[in-house]
Amino acid sequence: MNIALFPSVNDVDKEFLRDKDVIVIDVLRATSVITTAIYNGATVFPVLEVEDALKFKEEGYLLGGERRGLKIDGFDFGNSPLEYKREFVEGKNIVFTTSNGTRAIYKSFNAKNIYIGCMLNGKALVKKVLEDKRDIAIVCAGTYGKLSLDDFICAGKIIYELLKLGNCNIDDISTAAYIAYRDYKGKILEYVKYAGHYNYLISIGCKEDIEYCFMEDILDVVPVFKDGRIVKI
Amino acid sequence: MNIALFPSVNDVDKEFLRDKDVIVIDVLRATSVITTAIYNGATVFPVLEVEDALKFKEEGYLLGGERRGLKIDGFDFGNSPLEYKREFVEGKNIVFTTSNGTRAIYKSFNAKNIYIGCMLNGKALVKKVLEDKRDIAIVCAGTYGKLSLDDFICAGKIIYELLKLGNCNIDDISTAAYIAYRDYKGKILEYVKYAGHYNYLISIGCKEDIEYCFMEDILDVVPVFKDGRIVKI
Repeated sequence: MNIALFPSVNDVDKEFLRDKDVIVIDVLRATSVITTAIYNGATVFPVLEVEDALKFKEEGYLLGGERRGLKIDGFDFGNSPLEYKREFVEGKNIVFTTSNGTRAIYKSFNAKNIYIGCMLNGKALVKKVLEDKRDIAIVCAGTYGKLSLDDFICAGKIIYELLKLGNCNIDDISTAAYIAYRDYKGKILEYVKYAGHYNYLISIGCKEDIEYCFMEDILDVVPVFKDGRIVKI
Repeated sequence: MNIALFPSVNDVDKEFLRDKDVIVIDVLRATSVITTAIYNGATVFPVLEVEDALKFKEEGYLLGGERRGLKIDGFDFGNSPLEYKREFVEGKNIVFTTSNGTRAIYKSFNAKNIYIGCMLNGKALVKKVLEDKRDIAIVCAGTYGKLSLDDFICAGKIIYELLKLGNCNIDDISTAAYIAYRDYKGKILEYVKYAGHYNYLISIGCKEDIEYCFMEDILDVVPVFKDGRIVKI
């Protein structure tokens, strides 16, 4: 089983993804939100543009997401995973758009399976992809087309768990992510505090979100994107 | 001063490089060879193709480089920096082609200055770019279009030295490289031993080259690419 890592949505080689399992990571915060919402019983419809999302409002969908990290006018939820509690989202359809994460999901359309990954569901996800026995591409969403350190260390966690359980060949950037996670396991925020996007989120008051997003393996759920929607496997 | 890092020649955004200082890194082994040859008094003419190099032979140029890590038929030198001794290269014109390094040099043509960097000349190079006071792009050559761990840790060294002496804003992938170097300083081979290309070079008998290429700051020279040739500043 081969593992390749793409540092940001702009670096993705769409042809390379064909017939592989893709794991999309946007740990701060899109894939952490999606994983939480799916765990709490929602169905999530990712869309690229705010205008696309607003069209769904009249049909009774809830809207969630962000631009520049902030809740969008007319939306029901922002991009804090802590908003997506079971009491608010269970059985609901949520249309969701963010600056980087939803782009990364759509850019992965050539894959055989598109899984949503984060720190919260790392181990559950690894168990699933090892059952699939396909080559894996890890697509870090990044921030505006560049690697984000928070995605990188999360990719490192997923690779670390994969190597613990499976026999995998990993490329060098996967190795760099693996070493970073291995060396900072148990003190991840010491690593992530250098990330540009981490510091932006702190500046807009999202410290609690960050602490939540870096909790490991608290959600035993594997969200998968298929036919325009994200559901629980 | 802003610092951006491109993980491989395939990831380079040519427009972004315009008017910046670019540092090209291919630590195993193209930029280590070039730096050594320039230090020992050669002028180096990088070319992309073996056929281009062979045309120069009749005009009295020496030829150096590799394909698949090995010396090319009809060439005078391979890609081991240990071959480029002063007694053989001083005052000589050497046409040079490698699989990744020379591509990275040409891909950087939009830059204001194209410097050649490696572990051997890290500090000398940093002193020069800090005098220039331009934004810096670090172009890792990588291996066949993907990040190579050896280039990554060398980029980390250069960023480490830049941050020690200057006031720089660095992007997240630069931060990841910086942390890797900072944490493995003094035991770099413990990090690099995981690199795919490192292991390939070991398999073709290049252990001494690797040990040489990871010596730090032993050559006080800054090679610059201008008008088709690489010379000492």
